[in-house]
Amino acid sequence: MKQQKIVTLLTDFGLSDVYVGVMKGVIADINPTLKVIDLTHEIPPQNLIAARFCLMNAVPYFSQETVHIAVVDPGVGSNRRGVAIKFEGGFLVGPDNGLFSGIIGQIAAVELTNSRYWRTDSPSTTFHGRDIFAAVGAHLASGVDLEELGIVINPESLIKLPVVECREKEGIVEGCIQYIDRFGNLITNIPGNLVINKTWTVEIAGRNIPSKITYSDIPIGSLIALIGSHGWVEIAVNNGNAQSKLQLNYGDPVKVLLN
Amino acid sequence: MKQQKIVTLLTDFGLSDVYVGVMKGVIADINPTLKVIDLTHEIPPQNLIAARFCLMNAVPYFSQETVHIAVVDPGVGSNRRGVAIKFEGGFLVGPDNGLFSGIIGQIAAVELTNSRYWRTDSPSTTFHGRDIFAAVGAHLASGVDLEELGIVINPESLIKLPVVECREKEGIVEGCIQYIDRFGNLITNIPGNLVINKTWTVEIAGRNIPSKITYSDIPIGSLIALIGSHGWVEIAVNNGNAQSKLQLNYGDPVKVLLN
Amino acid sequence: MKQQKIVTLLTDFGLSDVYVGVMKGVIADINPTLKVIDLTHEIPPQNLIAARFCLMNAVPYFSQETVHIAVVDPGVGSNRRGVAIKFEGGFLVGPDNGLFSGIIGQIAAVELTNSRYWRTDSPSTTFHGRDIFAAVGAHLASGVDLEELGIVINPESLIKLPVVECREKEGIVEGCIQYIDRFGNLITNIPGNLVINKTWTVEIAGRNIPSKITYSDIPIGSLIALIGSHGWVEIAVNNGNAQSKLQLNYGDPVKVLLN
Repeated sequence: MKQQKIVTLLTDFGLSDVYVGVMKGVIADINPTLKVIDLTHEIPPQNLIAARFCLMNAVPYFSQETVHIAVVDPGVGSNRRGVAIKFEGGFLVGPDNGLFSGIIGQIAAVELTNSRYWRTDSPSTTFHGRDIFAAVGAHLASGVDLEELGIVINPESLIKLPVVECREKEGIVEGCIQYIDRFGNLITNIPGNLVINKTWTVEIAGRNIPSKITYSDIPIGSLIALIGSHGWVEIAVNNGNAQSKLQLNYGDPVKVLLN
Repeated sequence: MKQQKIVTLLTDFGLSDVYVGVMKGVIADINPTLKVIDLTHEIPPQNLIAARFCLMNAVPYFSQETVHIAVVDPGVGSNRRGVAIKFEGGFLVGPDNGLFSGIIGQIAAVELTNSRYWRTDSPSTTFHGRDIFAAVGAHLASGVDLEELGIVINPESLIKLPVVECREKEGIVEGCIQYIDRFGNLITNIPGNLVINKTWTVEIAGRNIPSKITYSDIPIGSLIALIGSHGWVEIAVNNGNAQSKLQLNYGDPVKVLLN
Repeated sequence: MKQQKIVTLLTDFGLSDVYVGVMKGVIADINPTLKVIDLTHEIPPQNLIAARFCLMNAVPYFSQETVHIAVVDPGVGSNRRGVAIKFEGGFLVGPDNGLFSGIIGQIAAVELTNSRYWRTDSPSTTFHGRDIFAAVGAHLASGVDLEELGIVINPESLIKLPVVECREKEGIVEGCIQYIDRFGNLITNIPGNLVINKTWTVEIAGRNIPSKITYSDIPIGSLIALIGSHGWVEIAVNNGNAQSKLQLNYGDPVKVLLN
C-alpha cells in the first residue's frame, strides 16, 4: 500500500469561487490517495509579501516529503517561469516571482517545461494553478522525480522579493511591520532571537510598550510586545486588536530598545 | 481494499457556522473512507444563478465516479423534490430547484423518497443538507444504486433556471454578466468558442475594451477582455478589480463586436 | 490496516492566516492517516459563548471515537489548564475555560501535563493550539490512553460558562438570543421540546410572530418562529435575514407564549 503523501495549497483565490475546489479535483484525479491541506487561500489578492511571509512560517511544521503548491501569480500567462524546487524541508511548486524567497535551504530547482505532467498541453493563460501547478504538484507527490518535470536551473537564479530587513545599532533595532494577522496582531521583521533573554521595550506610533511573555501578563485591552508564535517580535492587545488601536499598517516603522 | 471515492460539497452555508462541519460528520459516519472536497460554501445566500454557474464550471474537473452534493435550498421543507441524478461526468444530489440545470448529459434521475438512506426518517424541516442530501450522497458514493434511492423520474422533468443566453446577429453578440469572482473579474454568458481565433472587442459600460490573451499583455490597471479560465468571455483589470472600476453587477449588459 | 479515525477542529483563528494549516501539519506529522474535519474557524475572536454553542450542537453528529479539538483561548499562556475529556459521544481537547461546558455526559478528564505528547516541551506562550492541543489530539486519536496525557482530574472541577437558561412560568417562556447564524437566523436558548406539538407564538422586539413548521410556510420576506435544525426555537425570515430586519443581537430577550 502506498504511503499517504501530503500536498499543501496556499493561494490568493479566496473560498467564494470554485477555483480551489477545482485544483483539488485535478489533484484527486491524478492521485486520490494524496492528502491535501489548505495553508490559506485568503492572501490579499496579488500580495507577494504576505504570501512569502505565510509560506515561510508554515513549511517548517510539515514533513520533508510534503509538496507545497503556492499560487499568487500576478504574472500568469506572461513569460515568468513556473518552477519546482527541492529544499531541506520538502518541495515547492508555483510561479517564479519571489513567493518562495523566504524559504531557506533550497537545494535544486527545475523550470516546468515538461507538459506531460500538466493537466493539458494547452493550458489556460490565466489559471496555471489548475492546469500546471496542481497537476505537477500531484505528480511530484506521487513519486515523479524533480528532474522529470523540466529543465534544471540554478536555485540562485530564482527571483527574490525586495524584503526589508531590520537593522541593529547601539542597542536599537529598527524594523517594520511585515504582517498583520486576523486578530490585529502586528508582526514585525525583528527576529525573536535578537531580544530573547534580554530586557527590551518597543517604540511604535509614539508609544513605548513593555515586553512580556504572554497576553495574559497584562490587563485586558492593554498593549504588549512579545515574541509571537511565528518567532518574530509582535505587538498585540490582550483580548483586543492592536491594528485598530494603533491605526498602523504593513511597512510602518517599529523600534526595539534593548536596555 | 475499497477504492477512495470522492464527494464534493457546494452550499450557501458559509463557514462561520458548523453546518458544513456537521454535514461532513454525517458523511464520515456513513463511510469514513470517502474523500470530501469543498467546491465552495460562499454562494451568496439563496442565489441559485451563482450556484448553477459555479457547479457547471467545476464538475468537469472531477472523475466520473464523483458524487456532487449541492445545497442552495430556499424551498427547504416545502414540497419541492429532493433528487439524485446520474450524468455523463458523475452524480448530483440536492434539491430540484434548477441548481443542476447547467449540467449537460443528464442520463437518469430519482426523487429521493427512500428514507432508509436518510440520516433519520423524520428529517428537520430546515436542514435537508444534513438529514437527507449528505446521507444520500455518502451512500451513493459508497456503492448504493441510484434506483435504490427513490422513485425513478424523467430527467426532462427536472426544474430549469430561466437563464438568459447570449444572442449573435450580424457580427455582434449581445450578452450579460453572469458571474463576478473574488478578483472582480466580470464573467459574461458569451462562450469563448464564439470569439476564439477571431479579432474582437468588448463594449461595456460605454467603453470599448480590446481583447488579449492574458492579463499581463496590458499595463497594470488597464481593462482587458479575454477568454477566461472558465471558458467564457471575461472582462478584467490587470492586477486590479474590474467590478470596482466599472461599477457593474450581475445581469448588466455586454456586447462583443466581431471584426 | 489501521481504521481511519476522525479529528475535528473548532477555533477562532479564521482562515486568512496559516494558523489552522499549521495545526493540520502538526497532526499529519504525528499520524497522516487521521481524517481532519473543520467544524468552523470563524468563531468571533475570543467569544466563548458562541464557541460553546457551536461545539455542543455539532458533536452529536460524529461517531464516539472522534476527537474534537477546540481552541478559543483568551487565557493562553496564563495558568489556565489544558484538558482532555472523555464524554459519552467522544473526546474533547482544549483549554479549560468553559468551552466544553455545554457538552453532557462527561465521564473522565485529565489535565495535560505530560509534555511527551506535546509538539515540543517548550511550547509557545501564545499558540497552544499548535504546540499542545493539536499534538495531544492527534496522539489521542491514534490510540494513546486518556490517562497517559496527564493528571486525572474530576470532570466536576472543569470551568462552566455562566450561560443564561430560559424560565417557564404560567404558559410564558422567557429566554434570549444565544446565537446568530450566517443567514441572520436568531437562535434562542428555548429548547424545541418545550413547544413541540403545542400552539405557540413568539414575542420579540415588540412584534408577535406566529410559529410554523418551515420557512416556506409563509410569504417571502415574512417573519417566522420555528424549531430550527439545532433543536432550539428560532426566529427567521423566509428568504431573508431576521437579524437585519429586527436589528437584534446576542443576549436580547425573547418570549414564547404557549396558548
